Parts: sequence; C-alpha cells; structure tokens
Amino acid sequence: MSDNATDGGAGYAFDRSIAVERTGGGADSGTWAADVSAGWNVGAVPNGGYLSSLATGAFAGLVTHHDPLSVTCHFLRPAQPGPATLEGRVIKRGTTVSNVEGELRQSGKPVIRVLGAFTDFDPEGMSMPAPPPPALGEPDDLVTAAGHQGLPEIAKRFDWRFEHDAFAGLLGQAGAEPKLDAWMRFADGREPDALSLLTFADAMPPPVFNLIGPQWVPTIELTVHVRARPAPGWIRARFQTRYVVGGHLEEDGELWDSTGRLVAQSRQIAKLLTQPRPIH
Amino acid sequence: MSDNATDGGAGYAFDRSIAVERTGGGADSGTWAADVSAGWNVGAVPNGGYLSSLATGAFAGLVTHHDPLSVTCHFLRPAQPGPATLEGRVIKRGTTVSNVEGELRQSGKPVIRVLGAFTDFDPEGMSMPAPPPPALGEPDDLVTAAGHQGLPEIAKRFDWRFEHDAFAGLLGQAGAEPKLDAWMRFADGREPDALSLLTFADAMPPPVFNLIGPQWVPTIELTVHVRARPAPGWIRARFQTRYVVGGHLEEDGELWDSTGRLVAQSRQIAKLLTQPRPIH
Repeated sequence: MSDNATDGGAGYAFDRSIAVERTGGGADSGTWAADVSAGWNVGAVPNGGYLSSLATGAFAGLVTHHDPLSVTCHFLRPAQPGPATLEGRVIKRGTTVSNVEGELRQSGKPVIRVLGAFTDFDPEGMSMPAPPPPALGEPDDLVTAAGHQGLPEIAKRFDWRFEHDAFAGLLGQAGAEPKLDAWMRFADGREPDALSLLTFADAMPPPVFNLIGPQWVPTIELTVHVRARPAPGWIRARFQTRYVVGGHLEEDGELWDSTGRLVAQSRQIAKLLTQPRPIH
Repeated sequence: MSDNATDGGAGYAFDRSIAVERTGGGADSGTWAADVSAGWNVGAVPNGGYLSSLATGAFAGLVTHHDPLSVTCHFLRPAQPGPATLEGRVIKRGTTVSNVEGELRQSGKPVIRVLGAFTDFDPEGMSMPAPPPPALGEPDDLVTAAGHQGLPEIAKRFDWRFEHDAFAGLLGQAGAEPKLDAWMRFADGREPDALSLLTFADAMPPPVFNLIGPQWVPTIELTVHVRARPAPGWIRARFQTRYVVGGHLEEDGELWDSTGRLVAQSRQIAKLLTQPRPIH
C-alpha cells in the first residue's frame, strides 16, 4: 500500500499513509504492521514528521486520552518505503495525561523511538493573550511551490503559499534569513487534525537552507507539542533556526490554525553533515 | 545520603546529589541505586531538572559518547526524597550519536521516563553568528535571591542575579511579562558542565509566575538540548512563556556560558492546575 497518489484510492493520502494493522499485544501494549509510504519522501528517505504521525497514531489506540500533547521521536537510522512493524506500550495511565513509548522497526532494526504523552484538550482550560501569528498575505496572493523543479516528493502532498523570497535558499539563493513563514494545507483537501500536525511540523524545507543552500540535514530528535485541535482550513506556519553551534542546529516551528490560534510548537535538533549529500 | 548541605561533606552538592551505584546489567543495559536528595526540592517535590541530571548521568555510563545532546523526560508522578532505582538501556550505538532510554523508579513505580541522545561535541563543527544573549548588568550590580523568604529549597543551591523587577511575580506582584533574565551559578562554586545544564534549565521559578503569581505548575515533559560544553563561570539564562492555551503552557529556556556562547536550549510543557497548590 505504498502510496504516491493524492487522488484515487480510498480517502486521503495522509490517512492511507498512516494506516496500521494491529497484529498483537494486550491492553497495555501492542504490535502493528505498517507500510511506510514513499509519498512523504525527502530524497529516498521517508520524512520524520510523517513517521511520527504513523507511530503516534498506532500508539494512540492504547490509551483513552485522545490528543497527542507531546511527542518526542529519536531518529536512529533512515527509514525506507515499505513494510515496517510497530511496537508500543503504555508507561502510565493518568487522570489527565497518559504516556506511551515504542518504536518503528524495519528489517529487524529500530528506525525511530517514540515517547509520547496524550491528554484530552480542554477548550475551557486557561488561555492567555498570545503573540499574533506572522503577518502573511492572503494565500491566493502568494507564491505556490507547485511546479518548482527539484522539490522533494513530500512537497506534492502539501499546498504551500509563501512570500516570494521565503524559499530563497531552497531555490538556490543562499544568504537569506533562516526563517520561513508560509500557509500550509494538505494538497488533497484533507483537513488538519492534532495527529497530522506532527507531520506539518516537519514537512517544510529546513529554513537553514536560506543560509547555506540545500543539503542533507538529518534530524536527530524532534519534539512536537500540540496545543489545541486545529480548526479546518489553512495552517499558518513559522519555522526558524537561530543557532548553528558545533555542527548542530535547532529548528523551531510554530503552527496556527485558520482562527489564528496557536495549535502546535515544534523543535528539532539536526546535524550538518561535513560531506553534504544531495536532497533530491 | 539525602543532602541539604552546600558545604561540608565530600565535593559539591550537585555531584553528591547525582551519585549512583551500579547494581546490575551488562554492556547494553544497567540498573543503579540512587538516593534522591531533598536539596533540590520545590515544595516537597524534587525538581525535574535535577532528576534529569541524575538519570542522564547514570545512563551516560552505558555509551562512549560523552555529551548529552538531547534529553527528554516525561514526569509521571511526583518524586520523593529518598531511595530510587534506575533502569537504562542502549537503543542504538552510532558513529556520532548514541541513544539511550530508561526510567527512575521509586516504591516500585516509574517516576520519570527518559529518552536521550549522546554525542561528542565538536568545537570545529560549523557554527554561525547567533543572536546575542540578553543584556544584563554585571552580576555584582544586580539583585540576589539570597535571603528572600518563601523561595523553594532548590534556590539555596544556586546563586541567582537578576534585575530588580525580573522576579516580580514570584515576589507577589503578578502582572509582569512572563520572562526571566538572570545570571545563574551553583552556590557552592561548582562549575557548570553539560550534565548540570539539565538542572540549570529547570531550576528557576516559572516565568508564568510573573503573570499569575506563584502556584504549582507541574511539568509533563522537559527536553533539553545541550549545544556545547560551558566555559567556567556564570551562566546567563533567559526563560519565557509565550503561550498559555487550554490549561497548558510551554516554558522555553536559553543558557549562555561566560563567553557568551549558547550552551543549551530547553522547552517544557506544563499544566496549570485548576485548583492551585502551594509551592512552599
């Protein structure tokens, strides 16, 4: 069921790509079979945020809390499109938070290791006035990535809209600020939900490309905090890198829904390879 | 060996408080006995950053990479001063990164669950110009927390220096910006190192106190990315909360060493309780 298509087949690409089949386990643990899609590849490698959604979606079945509040993934080796197994277990069932852990395995080896906390978001919980989302023109007035040569496969799963210069680095004009503001939505019209925000948070080209041009920037660790279930419509996103220290960089992401509410924050730590590898 | 003292005894409070005794395991896993110190308490509960240093220090013995690049802790229930056991295992041994996981247990129950990545920092690795640390007066010109009534026990382990209004909320004057800039160092003169930055990153009063006054803000998850080994001397810190959404808040920390280099970033997600509990 590897899946490059955004139309045809049943349902939406994201849902087909995170489908799993329960193969064992009990009340507090489980095993699942999955087929890692090639549709979310960057180069030959399935995207880490997609793998986080895949694993987290499976492990969610172990707990009664519905919303992935905090999901940390460690990326141990590159995934490959094709068969995978998942193993997960409940660490703790709490009144307001339940914790799970597990891994995705391919060819007998762990590929990603996951530590997650689920809750039930409470729309009545305390909220406070927050910094506004980045100012962006209306999506229809902005540039689309569609049709650009050399974008990775995952770019076809999304509709991105951004100011003309935001992707300067990706498009070969290095030296710009390592920050990307953009609108995002699934290209096939699937609405965002909490689980898909894990994929949104890792789907854009690394903003450090604006500084150094495109190169392979393998993620070591990615943590996404989902803060609320997103309303339907566009997700407004800001991704930026502020510190490149000793060959490592962080990438911080913030995602707002169509009502202007913050719905997720992400941070990943990634490595700059001394011998760059092509990304497409 | 629970330890409130900053003088007397062997060595420094931090090192005594994170001491562990190996009790079992093999090359790829281990068990340890520890005695959780009351010296890093907030109210009756040992601080989460301290527990992260304790566990990470033990698990570091399983891998050959020296530096804790990324450590995520999930806090499952309040720790208590006194005996604890640690269990850890290697997930992967890599060329540049090794991953470990494990937990700290008390009374037969998991208290914190840890997922960590170790590396060897490369001072020759690519670095780029970065935003400067926050402007602060010289430590000797600033206010110290020493002598303030009502500070938690952990405050005695540190020497903090801050602008007069920075701790307004902690001192009962809510309504200020939820941001704290300060100098920090261990009160007994122990120099900072990579492992202790996990404790530095969670040691300050939550900046949200400036908005809502002191109350119990239990951490659900804390991730610290150590970016470089700190030089001796003061650590300059910024902690801030930007988003309080649905009863959850994030707290972001940045730590710079005495040379002005970023040495750690942290983020935690915490819960605002609807029924506040006293913190001291």
